[in-house]
Amino acid sequence: MEQLRLAVIAGDGIGPEVTTEARKAIRAAVDGVEVVETEYALGAAHYLESGEILEDATIDALRSHDAILLGAVGGDPSDPRLAGGIIERGLLLKLRFAFDHHVNLRPTKLHPKVQSPLREPGDIDFVVVREGTEGPYVGNGGAIRVGTPHEVANETSVNTAFGVERVVRFAFDLAEQRSKRVTLVHKTNVLVHAGGLWRRTVDAVAAEHPDVAVDYLHIDAATIFLVDRPSRFDVIVTDNLFGDIITDLAGAVGGGIGMAASGNLDPSGAHPSMFEPVHGSAPDIAGTGAADPTAAILSAALLLEHTGQAEAAERIRAAVDADVDARGDARRTTSEVGDAIAERIRASKEHA
Amino acid sequence: MEQLRLAVIAGDGIGPEVTTEARKAIRAAVDGVEVVETEYALGAAHYLESGEILEDATIDALRSHDAILLGAVGGDPSDPRLAGGIIERGLLLKLRFAFDHHVNLRPTKLHPKVQSPLREPGDIDFVVVREGTEGPYVGNGGAIRVGTPHEVANETSVNTAFGVERVVRFAFDLAEQRSKRVTLVHKTNVLVHAGGLWRRTVDAVAAEHPDVAVDYLHIDAATIFLVDRPSRFDVIVTDNLFGDIITDLAGAVGGGIGMAASGNLDPSGAHPSMFEPVHGSAPDIAGTGAADPTAAILSAALLLEHTGQAEAAERIRAAVDADVDARGDARRTTSEVGDAIAERIRASKEHA
Ligand SMILES: CC(C)[C@H](C(=O)O)[C@@H](O)C(=O)O
Ligand SMILES: CC(C)[C@H](C(=O)O)[C@@H](O)C(=O)O
Repeated sequence: MEQLRLAVIAGDGIGPEVTTEARKAIRAAVDGVEVVETEYALGAAHYLESGEILEDATIDALRSHDAILLGAVGGDPSDPRLAGGIIERGLLLKLRFAFDHHVNLRPTKLHPKVQSPLREPGDIDFVVVREGTEGPYVGNGGAIRVGTPHEVANETSVNTAFGVERVVRFAFDLAEQRSKRVTLVHKTNVLVHAGGLWRRTVDAVAAEHPDVAVDYLHIDAATIFLVDRPSRFDVIVTDNLFGDIITDLAGAVGGGIGMAASGNLDPSGAHPSMFEPVHGSAPDIAGTGAADPTAAILSAALLLEHTGQAEAAERIRAAVDADVDARGDARRTTSEVGDAIAERIRASKEHA
Repeated sequence: MEQLRLAVIAGDGIGPEVTTEARKAIRAAVDGVEVVETEYALGAAHYLESGEILEDATIDALRSHDAILLGAVGGDPSDPRLAGGIIERGLLLKLRFAFDHHVNLRPTKLHPKVQSPLREPGDIDFVVVREGTEGPYVGNGGAIRVGTPHEVANETSVNTAFGVERVVRFAFDLAEQRSKRVTLVHKTNVLVHAGGLWRRTVDAVAAEHPDVAVDYLHIDAATIFLVDRPSRFDVIVTDNLFGDIITDLAGAVGGGIGMAASGNLDPSGAHPSMFEPVHGSAPDIAGTGAADPTAAILSAALLLEHTGQAEAAERIRAAVDADVDARGDARRTTSEVGDAIAERIRASKEHA
């Protein structure tokens, strides 16, 4: 039987709880595939216990898997031992860079039964293709005279033709399978060098896709459209930092961050891709059963889609849709939601 | 009689139309002050005609005024002669830098009669204190091998203790006069050097203001709160780029960019401060009378407040409130709105 070798990084806070439900969904959804799951104890708690954030040997071990399922990492934000994003950078960003996750894929789709904070949300159904290995995330910053009145702290955003072109191509290919509209989001009127590279790249790739409509929005204007008329978007392509910002906003207007899934992809397949909910570890609600596992479960669907299990992915999505449709006012725990979705997945397989 | 020497840069698109109404409001509102207005023909249209974006001699002339009222600058975004933000950077940003406008003040207040795109907006009343002379706006970028597959384009954000401290102090002083809450917005888990400087500076200034409650949000999380619970904010302090992004979003949730005013302040008074609506030149609706002059008129109120005419500023704000209260469904032209507000200002002076 074919194997799907999964690495699971459950992480911190609500990470383990939502990952448990995502794993149930995967096991329920696959057909004729043996799912081999290997747990990796990583995250803030693991670091505080063991001193390890992410060893090279662990990266090598992760490399041997078909995909990585990640819950959430990050501890108490006020803990000085975790200051400066040491876990986020040393674990999450390190994996994205080590595994060349240059496409950070973040779909937003407002389910008709889910209430958006917007008065008139309209038909929200778009995907953000966020670059994942460049921009201000490269860690090329530094400071002098730290802690003195003469401190200077710089951060450099690095952007390459190689890095921009591949993600722009991905966005156009995706648009070809959707409503054939690509919006570039940047700040070309201020960040002229990076902006020029992005614009010229989009223009060049657009010329190869005459059937795809292309437009451009400054990042500030894009946030306005995301609340005033989010239905205008189909595929948004943007840099690492702008993508970080608008996908949280998109998650919020698209029915809440409890529904927002993401994939960190190396579409070349050279490295395992990594799938995670957009939300964080939410230490304040950890252990209470209040976490919504839907974003993690939808991330599992992305995982299956990108490891060649399109039908299994579709089963998960249909089950989530049905679960949302059937939602009443009663609060359900994390595992109640996960069990209900897994049950629907199994039922759909039997009736197929 | 005391003089108020105003420089007026009406600019492009709807700039001249909304500025005309803001000037009416100023003239109606002042008392015992002679308003001397000098028009400066600057902007995209002026550049295309004359080749001038902003000469040193013009900067020197502007320097002699008490304040600058700006409409909007920027032409047809698809005009290749205006590509790369040449007007925005050569005029708007150049003035902000030349006149050390380090406090970019952007209040958001949702009027009860104005419909927010949010379903449950709550009580939206906060001010963003955006740094105006540092960050990724400094123009310290560059590129090599431009136009080749090996292009590398960098943008450097520059942040100094001097620059951060003064704007953080301004934010805390402002919070002391308001609800005594300051939220720092940054991305300290990724931009660790700049983020560290901002955090340490906020911590240090906070220690001098024990009565002010301080919290921190990553920029991505801040966009979620701006749609999910904007009432949580009082004073937000943030860097130039993050401030650009969240003030457009704030304008949108706070009743639309047609209401959003801003001041580019040099609080030391060494240089004239500059006041402008947050919206752009909107060339698509220029000349149609469809532009809402309210943001420009509220910017005029900020101008008067910052040039020692607090009562006149209050008259304008009260008149705008009353105008919004009285709004029906009928569309009014730009000048009808401006005339109605000016009339209310005059009436309030007579009845005082
Ligand atoms: C945790 C943080 C470093 C991360 C990011 O900024 O990319 C997160 O916000 C995300 O969007 O996945
Ligand atoms: C026009 C542009 C350069 C400017 C900025 O980014 O500051 C504008 O968006 C603003 O917010 O005033």
